[in-house]
Amino acid sequence: MAANTTIPRDRGAYSFWTPVSIRYSDQDPMEHVNNVAITAFLESGRIGFANHIFQDVDLHPKGVVLASVTVDFLREISFPGTVEVGGILAAVGERSITTQYGIFQGDTCYVVSQSVMVFFNPQTRRSAAPPPELKAALERFLIGG
Amino acid sequence: MAANTTIPRDRGAYSFWTPVSIRYSDQDPMEHVNNVAITAFLESGRIGFANHIFQDVDLHPKGVVLASVTVDFLREISFPGTVEVGGILAAVGERSITTQYGIFQGDTCYVVSQSVMVFFNPQTRRSAAPPPELKAALERFLIGG
Amino acid sequence: MAANTTIPRDRGAYSFWTPVSIRYSDQDPMEHVNNVAITAFLESGRIGFANHIFQDVDLHPKGVVLASVTVDFLREISFPGTVEVGGILAAVGERSITTQYGIFQGDTCYVVSQSVMVFFNPQTRRSAAPPPELKAALERFLIGG
Amino acid sequence: MAANTTIPRDRGAYSFWTPVSIRYSDQDPMEHVNNVAITAFLESGRIGFANHIFQDVDLHPKGVVLASVTVDFLREISFPGTVEVGGILAAVGERSITTQYGIFQGDTCYVVSQSVMVFFNPQTRRSAAPPPELKAALERFLIGG
Repeated sequence: MAANTTIPRDRGAYSFWTPVSIRYSDQDPMEHVNNVAITAFLESGRIGFANHIFQDVDLHPKGVVLASVTVDFLREISFPGTVEVGGILAAVGERSITTQYGIFQGDTCYVVSQSVMVFFNPQTRRSAAPPPELKAALERFLIGG
Repeated sequence: MAANTTIPRDRGAYSFWTPVSIRYSDQDPMEHVNNVAITAFLESGRIGFANHIFQDVDLHPKGVVLASVTVDFLREISFPGTVEVGGILAAVGERSITTQYGIFQGDTCYVVSQSVMVFFNPQTRRSAAPPPELKAALERFLIGG
Repeated sequence: MAANTTIPRDRGAYSFWTPVSIRYSDQDPMEHVNNVAITAFLESGRIGFANHIFQDVDLHPKGVVLASVTVDFLREISFPGTVEVGGILAAVGERSITTQYGIFQGDTCYVVSQSVMVFFNPQTRRSAAPPPELKAALERFLIGG
Repeated sequence: MAANTTIPRDRGAYSFWTPVSIRYSDQDPMEHVNNVAITAFLESGRIGFANHIFQDVDLHPKGVVLASVTVDFLREISFPGTVEVGGILAAVGERSITTQYGIFQGDTCYVVSQSVMVFFNPQTRRSAAPPPELKAALERFLIGG
């Protein structure tokens, strides 16, 4: 879990944002937003962020597949309202990219999360190394890159 | 199903609006928004509209319970984007109220729906007739009321 | 809503069954199963029943699309447990079929529902009348047929 | 991510099982089960496992709250069918417990996951250290304990 301490919790670290409205059915008997709904918020942020990057580097959205997710729940989220999911590209590896997310309302961070997506061939349904030029193009989106 | 033909499909008929953002996971293998997600959109609209009215007449949100829903799917909804759910009060009965909803993007209506909510006693978990003054207060919200 | 009074509430009326396990996240702050989850239960029953029939008459599952749904909530459903969704074919029309569902635990009926599915051409994404032999084949599945 | 390599992928390592039926709406445009639905499967397994343990040690289910989750997606899951979620207690800490899960069909492992739950006071909605006797009682459930 140590890796997660490196996911930014300050709003200023995120450059791409996806707003998500909270639904009544996102709540559970604890009267807060259930973690399954939070996963859906994060996915909306991930798809929004990935499409933003992938469009720029001409990578098909079905050219990656989700390999792993970590989620740290920092504070309870309450209905109704809207959250904003910030996304950043944290690493580009040989066969995968690592992205990080923060769920915010104003400057308050409620959830941080990290996703590893693996390059994927939709025909064979197996992972695949990307061409070097795609890797180079993606690296331009790295934090501080 | 005849009743549903009376649910307005023109934007101008609706006075209260709840925006709902579409999530990637709302989609199914048909690559459109699944009807289960549309039910969640409608519930967001229903809770938003009900809270708006109930606050005004001092009725607790747990003082009604959903008895029935009808949904007509007019057009496919696609990710990504935002829909707006319009709501109106169509009838106030002896033990229930009937509300109607339209899901729109701009002036295009994608879904119409009707809900019957029954007055409910959260202690006994049974339906209950409302006091006459509550019924009268609700009637002020009727279309053309 | 009158049509719904014709949806059977006795277990014996249903011949095809789909079991669905209840999930923690199906619950809402009322501490019962939320209506959005109930819609997912009904969809599982509808797809199970439709695949059962369609396989027999050689109709592709993407050859119909859901046009309307009505749901009557008779009793609250509680986590944890399993429900069984019973399905029957109620009518075969010129361009659509009407199916009916009951959600049960033992002999107790919690929800009844009716769905109209329209024959659909996945290429044009428009409704389409089925060939007469398909209509005749489907009619063999009608209640009392 | 290194911690996840310690989550068992062999069926024999798990002693408590929760079956979960796959729903049509769990699928996304990739025509496999979406990761949000997998999170709901894992939650069903976690609640089932936690209730099993907590009942034995007389801990209220609302006496813990989910602090973090990691999920590794090993293989795609397809509709229809049922998965089984196996659970084990991996660690008991000063203020938290760590549980691990595997999602299986037969002997094939599709997903592994780890959850950290923090002891929680529902009145103050803050984390709280458990009494020593509760900690000792929980430790009896540890793998090899």
